[in-house]
Formats: sequence, structure tokens, C-alpha cells
Amino acid sequence: MSDFLTLYSPATVANVVCGFDVLGFALEAPYDTMHLRLRDEPGVSIVHEDDFNLPTEPKRNVAGAALLALLRAAPAGTGFEMRIQKAILPGSGIGSSAASAAGAVVGANQLLGNIFTKEELVRFAMFGEEVASGAQHADNIAPAIYGGVTLIRSAEPLDVVPLSAPPLHVTVVHPQIEVRTADARQILKQQVTLKAAIRQWGNVAGLVAGLLQSDYKLIGRSLEDVIVEPVRSILIPGFAAVKARSLEAGALGGGISGSGPSIFMLSETEATAQAVAAAMREVYQQLGVDFHIHVSTINSTGVRFAS
Amino acid sequence: MSDFLTLYSPATVANVVCGFDVLGFALEAPYDTMHLRLRDEPGVSIVHEDDFNLPTEPKRNVAGAALLALLRAAPAGTGFEMRIQKAILPGSGIGSSAASAAGAVVGANQLLGNIFTKEELVRFAMFGEEVASGAQHADNIAPAIYGGVTLIRSAEPLDVVPLSAPPLHVTVVHPQIEVRTADARQILKQQVTLKAAIRQWGNVAGLVAGLLQSDYKLIGRSLEDVIVEPVRSILIPGFAAVKARSLEAGALGGGISGSGPSIFMLSETEATAQAVAAAMREVYQQLGVDFHIHVSTINSTGVRFAS
Repeated sequence: MSDFLTLYSPATVANVVCGFDVLGFALEAPYDTMHLRLRDEPGVSIVHEDDFNLPTEPKRNVAGAALLALLRAAPAGTGFEMRIQKAILPGSGIGSSAASAAGAVVGANQLLGNIFTKEELVRFAMFGEEVASGAQHADNIAPAIYGGVTLIRSAEPLDVVPLSAPPLHVTVVHPQIEVRTADARQILKQQVTLKAAIRQWGNVAGLVAGLLQSDYKLIGRSLEDVIVEPVRSILIPGFAAVKARSLEAGALGGGISGSGPSIFMLSETEATAQAVAAAMREVYQQLGVDFHIHVSTINSTGVRFAS
Repeated sequence: MSDFLTLYSPATVANVVCGFDVLGFALEAPYDTMHLRLRDEPGVSIVHEDDFNLPTEPKRNVAGAALLALLRAAPAGTGFEMRIQKAILPGSGIGSSAASAAGAVVGANQLLGNIFTKEELVRFAMFGEEVASGAQHADNIAPAIYGGVTLIRSAEPLDVVPLSAPPLHVTVVHPQIEVRTADARQILKQQVTLKAAIRQWGNVAGLVAGLLQSDYKLIGRSLEDVIVEPVRSILIPGFAAVKARSLEAGALGGGISGSGPSIFMLSETEATAQAVAAAMREVYQQLGVDFHIHVSTINSTGVRFAS
């Protein structure tokens, strides 16, 4: 594989509590490994080196659809060969599809001599998200490409704002149950009270200020979601216990990752993040639900290339 | 008046576009002038040295009600004598009642040797706002006391977050029409779509990030209100023209100040703020509506004492 470009594309957390649909961040782990190279024929070929049995027809494949979007803006005749080893489980709620799409376009751009901006790459990768979920959302794609914490101030027109943040440790638990994105969407109320909306945007403002000012206490106070979590959390067995036990263990706060079923918690220190992991483990062992746990820092670079 | 403490309490802009009910800032001008001293008898006496014919019975007076709240937490037997020269027109939408309440409690605290925190002073002053409008809101009080830009992350429990901001020039026009706060409240829809709420909190997040990162372009892009302005602006003749002409003149953006009728615009330079003032002047001269215009920077100190 010496003529392939190898890259690692990270898991991401979107819908960060009060920042539903606007705030996301990237994780150091888990990540997908991808290999890309230019090929002589135009178009895209895909080989999966994992056991997820994902489609390989480019327009039906998340990474493939993202590359096809990029190819429409690339020099005529360009073609890519791609091999993918996914480690981020599809359906886990930590941006599995976004990692595929983001990794593909960042790798392709590198092979083409970096002719596209990050914002253009986000737009291409959003076509991959459309294949995965039927909607062109950017809230996982943007942190996978920019790294760190990102704000999607506006989806249309797209406006990505990278936000600086103090060191944060993330504990993610993925209970092995299925929450279909369609169900998670359908359960949302399309109308909210003005009062709840005001509380939510006060918290979003507080969370952004806490991140930019490295104010952990403010981050903690602002991690409150009065709109989405109360309805969506009922789809996730153990949610209330995980949250309560995590806060007892010292977490700043957290909530549903993406549309679930993963739950994430933020902590100021790694020791706390490990204590939170232990609390999560206990909850799901008692419930008899299988689970994966990841303890990670926030990834500040996004997709990175093998050195 | 040599034994009186003299202070200046500033006008404030609340409901900063997308930051409805949560963001406010203080102005350098206009401001009220107040004189306070301790007196031997407990309680509060008030003399108005202006022509607004405001009530002087303490519990019916905004500054008086704020002082009575402070007195409930002060050493027994404390009393204040207060003389007020208001320059901020009541009903203008730039925090006239908040200036009275904030000035009174900040002055009283100084006379008592600063025994209360700023957050306690905000709570006392909120009793003044209740006299003025029937509701204990903090969004004008907080910037009057803290100075600069403030976020009310949460009203209950109260959580005031001061936000740093780059130099900003403010142009405020006060058309001489009456918008009753009760009418401005009644016109608001109590339900909003989730989609509009998400757009609003994306903008609030962008505005906070723009302020803290001194990113004028981001501030400008984020100054969009899809919830309150579309309904409330119909109560203010000339609003659409003022906004359009101000943006043409180079303003970053702006909107209704408080619940109106004043309209404010933010600019990066004083020259632009003056050009905005000229544009506003033309609009109201053509409409034949009397008006006042203030051009000011953001006041970073809040209530200040005469030197």
C-alpha cells in the first residue's frame, strides 16, 4: 500500500446538549482508517476491509457520494481508489458516516494538491451524509474536518465557526441498542415554547462563552437541554441513570451524542473521565445491556494523515 | 451637595437581536445623574430634579423599590436620601428604569462599604424593574451594573456572565412614538418552530463567539433575529427603512432596542456610526416623526461615580 495515502478520520459528537443541530466536536478515538490513491480512470472505486457489509457502489456509499460531489468540482478525468477499514460502528451516534465522508474528501484534496477550502470539503462531504440519513447536515462533518469544537452558525448558507476550547476529556458509552435516526427525528416536537427556546439559547450562549473563556464551571452550568433531551432520552434505556451517576462522578455534564444511542459526558480531568466510564459501565452491566466505552480527549486537528 | 455621592447610571440596550431576553450592553451616553447619601432615619426619601413627574413614594418608584429590596438585606436602621436627574427618557426602550434601579443600588452599596456583590445588586435592582414593567427582568440591569456586554444565561436561578467585546460604536434612534411594553409582549407568539429556534441559537452562539474573538464579520453575520423582530418591528414606523439604510451605511447590524421604539445599530468605527446616524435622521425626517439620536461607544464600567 506504499502508493496509497493513509489517513485516520475521527468519531465526532454532534447535538452537544443545548447546541442541538449547531455544536459538534471531534474525538481522538475511535477513528476509521482509510487509504486513497489517484487512479487513471475517472470515477471512484471502493473496497471495504471491515465486516460492516456497507455498499460499495459509489453513489450509494457515504464516502463514495462525498467523492463524487468533489469530483464534480475537480479537474475532468480525475479518479480515486479507496480502501476503508471502519472502526466507528455504523448507527452508534458518534458520526460513523461523517468520518467516512470527511476522510474521503480530505484525503482526495491532499492528493489533488489542496485545491479546495475546508468549507468546500464540508459541502462535498455533506452529500455523503445525505446518503446515510437523507439530510445534508454538517454538524458531524465540520468537526471531523476542522477538528476541535465547531459551530454551524447557519446551515443555509453554510457558516462554520471553529471555537477554541480548554482541555476536555470525553467519556462516551455506546449501549448496543438500535435508535433509528428516523425515529429520533420523528419524536421531536416541531413547535417549542418561546420560554424553552430562550432558556436553550441562554445556555448555548453560556456554553460558547465557557469554551472560549476556558471557564469549566460555566461550561458545566450551560450543559442543559430543555428541548430535545427530555423527549429523545426516553429512547435510550439507562439514560437518566448514566447522567445522574456521571454527574456524581464529577462530570461537567453531557447528554445524547448525535441522535443516540451513545451518551457522552465531558470532564475536566482524565481521572474524572475514567470515573465516569466506571459509573457508565456499572449502569449497563446492571441493565444487562452490552456496551462499548471510549475515553478520549477532544481531537484538535480533525482528519490526520499517517506520518 | 458636598456630602452626597454623585453617580452616573447608563442607558442600556437589551434584547440584542438574536439574544432576545439574554444579551444586553451598556452605553456611554445617555446617562442619569443621581445623588445619594445615608440619612439618620431608616427608609428611603426621593426627590426628582427633572420634569418626568415620576412617583416619589419609594415602593412605587423604580429606584425606591430597588433600595427597599437592598435595605431588607442591609444593617437595621439604614436609610437613604436620593435625588435623581433623569436624562434617559422613560419609555424609550434603552433601559430608563434599569438606570434608576441600578444607579440606586450601586450608590447605596458604595455608601455601605461595598457589602454586596454585583450579582446581589442585580437582584435588588430587579425589584425596581418589577415596579416599572411588572416583571423582574435583568437584561438591562446587568449591563448597567457590570458594564460592557452581559449574558443572562439563566434568569432563575440568576446567572450573569460578563462577555468581553472588541470596540463597538452604537447608534441609537428613538422615534417619539409610544410602544407600550405590554403591547410589545402581547404581540409575541408563545410558540415558535423548532427550526426557527435552532436558527436563532446558531446566531446567538455566533454572536457570542464573534464578540469574544473580536470577529466583526461574524458579529455582523450573527445579528439576525428570525423570531421577535419580524413581529415586533411592525409596531415601529420606519423600522425596515432604518435597518436597510443603516446596513447600506456600513453598520454591522442591529435591531429593536429592548421592546422599542428605539432602534440600535452596531458599527466598527465611529465614522460609520455617524453615517448610520445620518441615515436614521433622513428616514424620520421624511416620515415627519420627531426623534433623538445617540452615538456612543459601549460603556465598559457600568454605573460610575463622579470623581
